[in-house]
Amino acid sequence: MSKELLALRDKIDEIDKSILSLITKRLALVTEVGEVKSKQGIPIYDPKRETDMLAKRRQEAENAGISPALIEDILRRLMRESYISENDKGFKKIYTGQGSIVIIGGNGQMGRLFSRLFTLSGYNVKTLGSKTMHQAAEVIKDAAAVIVTVPINKTCEIINQLPPLPKDCVLTDFTSIKVKPLKAMLDKHQGPVVGLHPMFGPDVPNLAKQIIVYCEGREPDKYQWLIEQMRIWGANLCSIDAKQHDKCMSFIQALRHFTSFAYGVNLQQEHADLEQLIALSSPIYRLELMMVGRLFAQDPELYADIIMASDDNIELIKRYYKRFGQLVELIAQRDKTKFIENFNEVRTWFGRYAQRFIKESQVLLKFANDNRE
Amino acid sequence: MSKELLALRDKIDEIDKSILSLITKRLALVTEVGEVKSKQGIPIYDPKRETDMLAKRRQEAENAGISPALIEDILRRLMRESYISENDKGFKKIYTGQGSIVIIGGNGQMGRLFSRLFTLSGYNVKTLGSKTMHQAAEVIKDAAAVIVTVPINKTCEIINQLPPLPKDCVLTDFTSIKVKPLKAMLDKHQGPVVGLHPMFGPDVPNLAKQIIVYCEGREPDKYQWLIEQMRIWGANLCSIDAKQHDKCMSFIQALRHFTSFAYGVNLQQEHADLEQLIALSSPIYRLELMMVGRLFAQDPELYADIIMASDDNIELIKRYYKRFGQLVELIAQRDKTKFIENFNEVRTWFGRYAQRFIKESQVLLKFANDNRE
Repeated sequence: MSKELLALRDKIDEIDKSILSLITKRLALVTEVGEVKSKQGIPIYDPKRETDMLAKRRQEAENAGISPALIEDILRRLMRESYISENDKGFKKIYTGQGSIVIIGGNGQMGRLFSRLFTLSGYNVKTLGSKTMHQAAEVIKDAAAVIVTVPINKTCEIINQLPPLPKDCVLTDFTSIKVKPLKAMLDKHQGPVVGLHPMFGPDVPNLAKQIIVYCEGREPDKYQWLIEQMRIWGANLCSIDAKQHDKCMSFIQALRHFTSFAYGVNLQQEHADLEQLIALSSPIYRLELMMVGRLFAQDPELYADIIMASDDNIELIKRYYKRFGQLVELIAQRDKTKFIENFNEVRTWFGRYAQRFIKESQVLLKFANDNRE
Repeated sequence: MSKELLALRDKIDEIDKSILSLITKRLALVTEVGEVKSKQGIPIYDPKRETDMLAKRRQEAENAGISPALIEDILRRLMRESYISENDKGFKKIYTGQGSIVIIGGNGQMGRLFSRLFTLSGYNVKTLGSKTMHQAAEVIKDAAAVIVTVPINKTCEIINQLPPLPKDCVLTDFTSIKVKPLKAMLDKHQGPVVGLHPMFGPDVPNLAKQIIVYCEGREPDKYQWLIEQMRIWGANLCSIDAKQHDKCMSFIQALRHFTSFAYGVNLQQEHADLEQLIALSSPIYRLELMMVGRLFAQDPELYADIIMASDDNIELIKRYYKRFGQLVELIAQRDKTKFIENFNEVRTWFGRYAQRFIKESQVLLKFANDNRE
């Protein structure tokens, strides 16, 4: 290795150390921001501040002759870390009453995540699990909100078994279908009811920018504090009709999980050489294989329940199977013209998203490549 | 907005500006590194330097009480930018003779990428396209290497039509199948032959860490300079048997592209509400939808040719269809036990990769979330 190169590398290392020290200072300031926001009840995610700040730094990067995308990526990564620091400082409590938060299924991963967030916001959180449900009447009698977050096939049963709730107590659930649980909750409780569906896994570092769907049940003015509380945590709350929600979930969950499941079963039954497939993977294929493989690290029962949750799901999957067969026929006949016709129809259906997804995936693949050993 | 918060934000902005200025200095140093490497013929990607440097900065981050992952992510992003700067400074030319590089299909995207890299390395590059093929004999007569990079279904035909090549000229191709083109090249030319398959799209910013597969043809000592040249560009060259390569590609390309195609056709024929699906997407589903949607922004003819390239591909897809049908039957009968049994077999097949893919996808999803508006 030449002296010239070593000297340059030493200089680069010195710069990197200075960057590290600036980052340390930045995170200390962010902790102070978190304290101010917590006191004043300001949501941790502030889209306008982000946009303004990024625009300024991008402009400065351009003036300095360096890539604006580079500085944006680095600042976005720093902001992710900042949300974690801000998160730890706690949140303003929106509910002004005395009641506690009761989480049924509070020992599950999602239950624990929300238990932590409510506790960080100054609430008294109580949890109920299968072994403690006999104490439900006692635990629930002073509740401000009862949250049901249990496996999909047990949700309605558990709602039906609930003891009577205080009149103004909010009853809600986190199940990934909404029509049936919402009906069960409205039947059970005469007070405020709202169906929620957090659109993320329990492993998120915080709720900044994460989507939570909510379906109106009854007395929205009385559950508004709960929605506001989740906004303070940084979540993006979207209202939707329960039926429409469930129809979308047949695609997003049942059909998608089933196809990943079938794809995995096929690879295994073909005795494909996994190590070699991975060695030969383009970044795109590695990502696709990752999306399949990750399913199988999870709980099979959960996925069985999600896929078999409704007749609509099964019918949707059957229609997919039928179309799949028609397309197999098409390629078996080497009908290139018809293939291209079909392809172009789907392109039209995807509209501007086809191009957008190309760009978005390119950005992601670059990050994936950065992390390649 | 409180004065307290504004004052903190001003301080953060000052720090960000200082970071920007350090990055500018770093990139200037990297340009100098690029010049030294180019002079001395050192590959732009140096895994040991990366590993050592990251380990030191991670340790320093831990000592400073901040997340090692944060500093690693930022340094990796800076290194990506560095490869681009180093790339622009040119590369050492490995071939010591006078001959030129002839790229057939040189006006395609992949042809242009390699044309640029060879030119940056001091080679004289000539391209041939469908309109200039009649000049092939003249253009090729002093070639050091002839590279065929044309659509998959034209590769063998074009190889067969080549005029005689100089005795020591390397004949190679970039097609995504290898058995047939390799045979065609060996039949055509009595000198050095090697089959190549770059495992990335033509839109990569540079070749750092990108995989190029090569399948031995004839006289490896005479095409070694070409392999070495690609290593200098930062690529990771992997040798594999042509038959094994093609078998893997049936999975990686034909089967995967076909399933994405079928999934897209189904969404369109179901008249699914795309805007709503996207609004309700979890980060994972958005990524999965992205992988499907991006296909349809590309050339249908290319995908038709890849999928229908061999009878083996069609047979593989037919077997998948059959298994898919059996699994549909299983869920129609709500056979949860059998579902879980199948699931666990696939989990075993994925082995350590199931967990690894979960972790890897979590990292990627965090980057995706950073970029969410």
